[in-house]
Amino acid sequence: MKTYLDCFPCFLRQALEAARMAGADEKRQRMMLDSTMALLRDVPLESTPPEIGNQVHRIVRQLTGNGDPYAAVKVESTKEALRLYPRLRALAAEDGDRLERATRIAIAGNVIDFGPGTDFDIEETLGSILYQPFAINDMAAFRRVLSEARSVLYLGDNAGETVFDRVLIEALGVPVTYAVKGGPIINDATVEDALAAGLDEVAEVISTGSDAPGTILSGCSAEFRTLYEQADLIMAKGQANYETLSAGGEQLFFLLKVKCPVIARDVGVPVGSIVLKQGRGQR
Amino acid sequence: MKTYLDCFPCFLRQALEAARMAGADEKRQRMMLDSTMALLRDVPLESTPPEIGNQVHRIVRQLTGNGDPYAAVKVESTKEALRLYPRLRALAAEDGDRLERATRIAIAGNVIDFGPGTDFDIEETLGSILYQPFAINDMAAFRRVLSEARSVLYLGDNAGETVFDRVLIEALGVPVTYAVKGGPIINDATVEDALAAGLDEVAEVISTGSDAPGTILSGCSAEFRTLYEQADLIMAKGQANYETLSAGGEQLFFLLKVKCPVIARDVGVPVGSIVLKQGRGQR
Repeated sequence: MKTYLDCFPCFLRQALEAARMAGADEKRQRMMLDSTMALLRDVPLESTPPEIGNQVHRIVRQLTGNGDPYAAVKVESTKEALRLYPRLRALAAEDGDRLERATRIAIAGNVIDFGPGTDFDIEETLGSILYQPFAINDMAAFRRVLSEARSVLYLGDNAGETVFDRVLIEALGVPVTYAVKGGPIINDATVEDALAAGLDEVAEVISTGSDAPGTILSGCSAEFRTLYEQADLIMAKGQANYETLSAGGEQLFFLLKVKCPVIARDVGVPVGSIVLKQGRGQR
Repeated sequence: MKTYLDCFPCFLRQALEAARMAGADEKRQRMMLDSTMALLRDVPLESTPPEIGNQVHRIVRQLTGNGDPYAAVKVESTKEALRLYPRLRALAAEDGDRLERATRIAIAGNVIDFGPGTDFDIEETLGSILYQPFAINDMAAFRRVLSEARSVLYLGDNAGETVFDRVLIEALGVPVTYAVKGGPIINDATVEDALAAGLDEVAEVISTGSDAPGTILSGCSAEFRTLYEQADLIMAKGQANYETLSAGGEQLFFLLKVKCPVIARDVGVPVGSIVLKQGRGQR
């Protein structure tokens, strides 16, 4: 997905949030905004938003000297999600279609933001996601591709969300490789975060080799790229994976809650939608 | 109120919206964002947000050659509000405290956005504003100052909202001067817009002499400033008037719906609050 001008205000917002998360004072926060604005002046709109976001967060880390501003948030998110895990697992095992229930729970993990100051009702979120109709529902195709897959490559998203992914992984019935970031970026899960969430108990946890948001294949390790090229089924979690992989081939399935109006327009659904969308064309 | 760094993303958002409203293509929209970012690099945070917003909108008008991008929106807003007027008037006349009901209706006018693509439920908005508790309720002080006032200076806000203000003006029981912008800025009412809304039937309609958002006294005409200095009671409508007049004296009353998190923090209330707030100190 290309970058839209509507993303520009959002890049400033992200830079400011990350600078504050890194403990920067107002003067340094403003330096962050200045550097971000200098970046945006020359940025090609053909880049995907996570490619630009990656540069923004690189500037934050350089200017603040804090290599992992979201470290505490990630630890807290994982802890909170682990506390919920028995309940999530029981929810997936209730009557009905287990694969669909587990898919919905994994998407609920994409909604929940455990960041400080956020005030969400976990019961309400789970309740609504379990029954909200999919705006795009490629569940039949997903079942078909899964039934023929020897294994699954699962592209993770945020720390904490990992635990919700685990519930879906347990419902897939085939060996899963769970790919996470090669280094800290926003609140995305790294190998360390995935291990803290116990994902190694249900999947092989690997790094993509890249610390950019989403999955920018050109920045990933050769090893990961080979795995990606050969995977029978790839599950891509969250908005940034959609933004970076967009079309991507029929073996690719995007699982996300659409939170951003620009992505909503690109996907062709309203903000707030939940989506299970098969990729198109060649990978 | 000073400008916060949180306002920076919002200035970009405003610039983009106004550029599109002015019919600019993507290339020119980007030029708008570039110019806005250049402006923000050097802007002193001691300025009020409307002072900076004023410069942003000035750039839009220069770059697009469109001196009044919101002209059609304003005409449509006024038309739509006039259609509602008999109902608003009947609502104010219902049982209960007429001044408070009319004050609430005036605040409802500050909520309603008739812009294209906005989808709001007028019944729901009116219903909630009529019964929503004030987060700050200086109604007693307002009644006291009003009871001793020979006349009222009413600082208007947007086109369309004017009609809702009219309902309150009719409940005040003293002569009212209704001050609007000296030239087009966003969807703020000008003299032309106020006359189209029939405000001259209930008040003396005047221009502040300034085409900046809010009321930046230093940019207003000498005539308006004298009026402001001598007014027994000033009613300031909407967020921009709060941002530019902040403290402002005990004869000043702010009427607004708080829509922005930065203003919410400055006022000390949650976003979504309705506020009738007396100014403090000297004008």
